[in-house]
Amino acid sequence: MYNIDKLYEAVAERGHVCVGLDTAAEYVPPRERGRSGAQAVLAFNKALVDATIDAAACYKVQIAYYEAAGLEGLRTYAETLRYIRGRGALVIADIKRGDIADTARQYARAHFEGDFEADFVTLSPYMGMDSVEPWISYAESAGKGAFVLMRTSNRGMRDFEYLELNGPGQAGAAGRLYHAVGDRIAALAENHRGVHGYGAFGAVAGVDSDSGREEAAAIRSRYGGLFFLIPGYGAQGGAAADAALLLREGNGGVVNASRSILRAWMEEVKAGGGEGPDYEADNCFAAEAARRAVVVMRDAIRTELNAETGPS
Amino acid sequence: MYNIDKLYEAVAERGHVCVGLDTAAEYVPPRERGRSGAQAVLAFNKALVDATIDAAACYKVQIAYYEAAGLEGLRTYAETLRYIRGRGALVIADIKRGDIADTARQYARAHFEGDFEADFVTLSPYMGMDSVEPWISYAESAGKGAFVLMRTSNRGMRDFEYLELNGPGQAGAAGRLYHAVGDRIAALAENHRGVHGYGAFGAVAGVDSDSGREEAAAIRSRYGGLFFLIPGYGAQGGAAADAALLLREGNGGVVNASRSILRAWMEEVKAGGGEGPDYEADNCFAAEAARRAVVVMRDAIRTELNAETGPS
Repeated sequence: MYNIDKLYEAVAERGHVCVGLDTAAEYVPPRERGRSGAQAVLAFNKALVDATIDAAACYKVQIAYYEAAGLEGLRTYAETLRYIRGRGALVIADIKRGDIADTARQYARAHFEGDFEADFVTLSPYMGMDSVEPWISYAESAGKGAFVLMRTSNRGMRDFEYLELNGPGQAGAAGRLYHAVGDRIAALAENHRGVHGYGAFGAVAGVDSDSGREEAAAIRSRYGGLFFLIPGYGAQGGAAADAALLLREGNGGVVNASRSILRAWMEEVKAGGGEGPDYEADNCFAAEAARRAVVVMRDAIRTELNAETGPS
Repeated sequence: MYNIDKLYEAVAERGHVCVGLDTAAEYVPPRERGRSGAQAVLAFNKALVDATIDAAACYKVQIAYYEAAGLEGLRTYAETLRYIRGRGALVIADIKRGDIADTARQYARAHFEGDFEADFVTLSPYMGMDSVEPWISYAESAGKGAFVLMRTSNRGMRDFEYLELNGPGQAGAAGRLYHAVGDRIAALAENHRGVHGYGAFGAVAGVDSDSGREEAAAIRSRYGGLFFLIPGYGAQGGAAADAALLLREGNGGVVNASRSILRAWMEEVKAGGGEGPDYEADNCFAAEAARRAVVVMRDAIRTELNAETGPS
């Protein structure tokens, strides 16, 4: 059984929310910052995991926020992953690595074994499929999975991902660069397909406010066998309706939100008329606010899915 | 003064070799492996740096080989960078990071400050220029530089980098994907140009055995203001003649070799009729073998450059 099958089942049980632990030190309530920065982040992460574990499909940990604090930050990263997995939840290591085959093998060892072991990783395809393929042996031996960058939702997406290729005959299909990438990932997924029909290797697929609903629907329809990691919800400006278009029969993707969950406590303090974001909030308060944000998001996506398919 | 200016001067003084410290544990002579793996790698790296520092332009440390050993490996990574910089040499952190702007800022903090501070990094452009631009503030404040993946020399390069774009009007020029990337990097470099004419941001540019000399010459000619990090020498199959085509007036690039330098001691033992690669070699032997490999490579590139320009 691949991890992607477990993720499918987690979505069916608990909805589509992927909680993004891109935990900047300033997201921790001030009164909890007595410890060292890295220890404070770890305690905050644990509180949020405890509060959201029955309402979220999985977690995504953005390693950059931990690398930024050096060795101590990476210890927090390792401990955060271990805590999530110890609680029986799935975790995506958001590392976006991409390098030649020999190096990719080292990265795979780094993130699918040992201190930094995760259930899934994110990968960057620029250098080609020999930067992706070495990760596959871990799908076969340990069920691991990966989400390869395909069509992201950031502003710069239009710089390269969106460029039009020169007609058919290249990568088997005309289209944009991201289609060439998606087509190769889809072929890979086909050979490592789990029991629920999705490949162990999926794709990062988002939409942005400038793209039409047509694009999202076309992506979903072109890549029926790919499970999507969908960014751009909340702080990046996406919405439940956009995300729903990238799902299929109520599954086939998780929707990531980071800041809107991590900073939910600040919004609640502000709305409650507190004297600013640091007014008496602690990790318990932050965790409960995070939970409420996850539940609202989960239900908004479910509502959209029901609206699409009509009453069942 | 940008680090790219210091690198230009290092090339002028000491030649074009960038020593790649992609140090797998098995490259350390067996009799030096008594220590923990990570400590053995650090001692090996230090010996090689000491032996090559007056014959190499700079060092490149591939973080994947250290991440693979977890937290202890990353401590070795940090100590290797600190040692190289402490000796007054320049070091490229080969990290190939690429992520949205907020995340890129965290990565920049991770690799241009603190435990993992380097002089240059490598970056991956897939997600667009907003994944590259946040690194620039460190060029302005601290002289830091970056090499963005453009045209690499691995087999998979043809999967995406080499795809032909749909005519002019896209990214300002017709051509392949790597041209679209290169054109954007060149524009960035133009705004951060050092005293020797090269931008603080350069590109990873290699050639492979299938591509003609024409392609290398065309890359050099199209990107006059880009300093190149040139991979593919030695174990990856490139050669001095190919590398020379990517240089300009004897400068404008460094040529990386990793395994052919790190494993030079094994080749020497074999050639000398030893009873296998572990026959009595120690770090001193490995370091001297590495030095000889660097000098041979440095001189081979210089010979090619002289052959091109004729006697001066």
